[in-house]
Amino acid sequence: MVSALIAPDGSIERMGGRELHANDGPDGVIRTLLQSIQPCLDRTESRSVSAVGVAVAAQVDPETGTVIHAPNLVWRNVPLARRVSDALSGIPVVVLNDARAATLAEWRLGAGRGTNDLFCMILGTGVGGSAVVGGRLLEGGSHALGEVGHLTIVAGGRKCHCPNSGCLEAYAGGWAVAARAQEAAASDPHSASAMVSRAGSAEKISARTVFEAAKEGDPLATRIVRETEDYLADGAVSIANAFNPSVFVLGGGMVAGWPKFASAIQEAIRTRCQPPAAQAKVVLAKFGENAPLVGAAEAARRSLAVPRGSSRKVSERGSRA
Amino acid sequence: MVSALIAPDGSIERMGGRELHANDGPDGVIRTLLQSIQPCLDRTESRSVSAVGVAVAAQVDPETGTVIHAPNLVWRNVPLARRVSDALSGIPVVVLNDARAATLAEWRLGAGRGTNDLFCMILGTGVGGSAVVGGRLLEGGSHALGEVGHLTIVAGGRKCHCPNSGCLEAYAGGWAVAARAQEAAASDPHSASAMVSRAGSAEKISARTVFEAAKEGDPLATRIVRETEDYLADGAVSIANAFNPSVFVLGGGMVAGWPKFASAIQEAIRTRCQPPAAQAKVVLAKFGENAPLVGAAEAARRSLAVPRGSSRKVSERGSRA
Repeated sequence: MVSALIAPDGSIERMGGRELHANDGPDGVIRTLLQSIQPCLDRTESRSVSAVGVAVAAQVDPETGTVIHAPNLVWRNVPLARRVSDALSGIPVVVLNDARAATLAEWRLGAGRGTNDLFCMILGTGVGGSAVVGGRLLEGGSHALGEVGHLTIVAGGRKCHCPNSGCLEAYAGGWAVAARAQEAAASDPHSASAMVSRAGSAEKISARTVFEAAKEGDPLATRIVRETEDYLADGAVSIANAFNPSVFVLGGGMVAGWPKFASAIQEAIRTRCQPPAAQAKVVLAKFGENAPLVGAAEAARRSLAVPRGSSRKVSERGSRA
Repeated sequence: MVSALIAPDGSIERMGGRELHANDGPDGVIRTLLQSIQPCLDRTESRSVSAVGVAVAAQVDPETGTVIHAPNLVWRNVPLARRVSDALSGIPVVVLNDARAATLAEWRLGAGRGTNDLFCMILGTGVGGSAVVGGRLLEGGSHALGEVGHLTIVAGGRKCHCPNSGCLEAYAGGWAVAARAQEAAASDPHSASAMVSRAGSAEKISARTVFEAAKEGDPLATRIVRETEDYLADGAVSIANAFNPSVFVLGGGMVAGWPKFASAIQEAIRTRCQPPAAQAKVVLAKFGENAPLVGAAEAARRSLAVPRGSSRKVSERGSRA
């Protein structure tokens, strides 16, 4: 996990971290979390840390700070905010879902500043997202709104890691881009030779391998990138029609690896959405992989309702470490 | 257009209507609207009409009651609420989008009572929808949130009436079911003979024709219904994953024509959604085609912030007449 001391404007003043062992159980993981943030608490001299925010890849009730379900950690109903707060002499602790934390960071301090209606799509190994509508970060009936990686974009299509088939993530998530490239290599080893030699073997081809080979003009990698672009366009058109954001923020490792996805998505939204939705402006995320950290700190700051500049806070990003 | 006098509990006390001519322009349409609601205003004896609600198939700013864009009426920026209120001696007038009005009716008075997180999907000639999240009816950045008829469910698929291809509506909207059946009839007249004789000619086959033939066991009609069910399941899984509603309300003429769509959609959500979204409960709309009328009245009542039971209001549904 990664921890940071974050200023009210979202800038990171200090970072640290500890290796997280997902199978340590709540007691072990919370112990690691406390060790991870301790340096941020210790070395803060001039101003005091006023609150702690924790972003976690989980279904979270942000009102209570309880982790309802964290598949990676195999947690159910862990009162994380209360337990961390108790261990830190009662300092306020806020816990929220990592996609929502990233969205909060981009909305209040990043690429989506100034709008009341934003969708933040995170293209990484998986595809996630979260929405701000009418100036509110949405939770959904069971704190899971925004799972746009699991929009069906190809009826009867590729099996996803989720119970559905044909999901956006099953084509355009990092794992799926790698799988599609590996399949192409298996069926046509000759065309895949550049990617195979770059990766070491066909089974080791990753999304990054594909992007790097495409940047050097490899035809098969280029084709896979183009097809991924088309799938992302299908998904983004769906998202813009469904959520009608004014600003569409794109983040995650896939966009870092192939930033041109942003212009393809902008063009698709402009030309293929219903007219009101076609106005959405596509922008790249500002905080990159640190967005959940920055957003967790921002959530902690907002929970205090103190004016900016009067305090700092420690942020923690948990279960993905 | 249809007008009604509606009690605070959503029950319709009196209904009327006038034929609307979409190309009459704002002046003519507003004149027809005033004629249409006049009987509701005139004949109200014991209690007075306290507000008027108007639902219109348009992009509407509900704060100002301005119709931003109504494609059917070819209107742009018509201050409908102000104009109707001026003509009615200043009585409060609320104008809102018809899908949002229907959703409000189902949420406050109908099949979705008691939840804070609801999606209302309207399966008619087109496919529309609207969401309540965290106890708020969502608008979106340009008052167009919830256009789930234009989720891409078949990448590179059938051309839609919108600028996109492969949309849910292009497979499962009433017009698309009719088109798919007509195409099947053209390619295999023998199999389509039951539908053709029922409709009069292949070109006159409608979604209703398909449902009626399927109810009598016609194999081709049954196949088209099953395929429609599959497309609706793909769309509903996407919607539930994206919006995470606790209650998923189904309304519109397609569901009235084939109510079993509801159980197919419930089963798909239960078995194919992400676990938190899979909990959504599918219910049939209570108010049917009157939902926009009832919702417009409810919006008018809420705008007054008066306790229930103290007044009645007139509701009007405009541009789809």
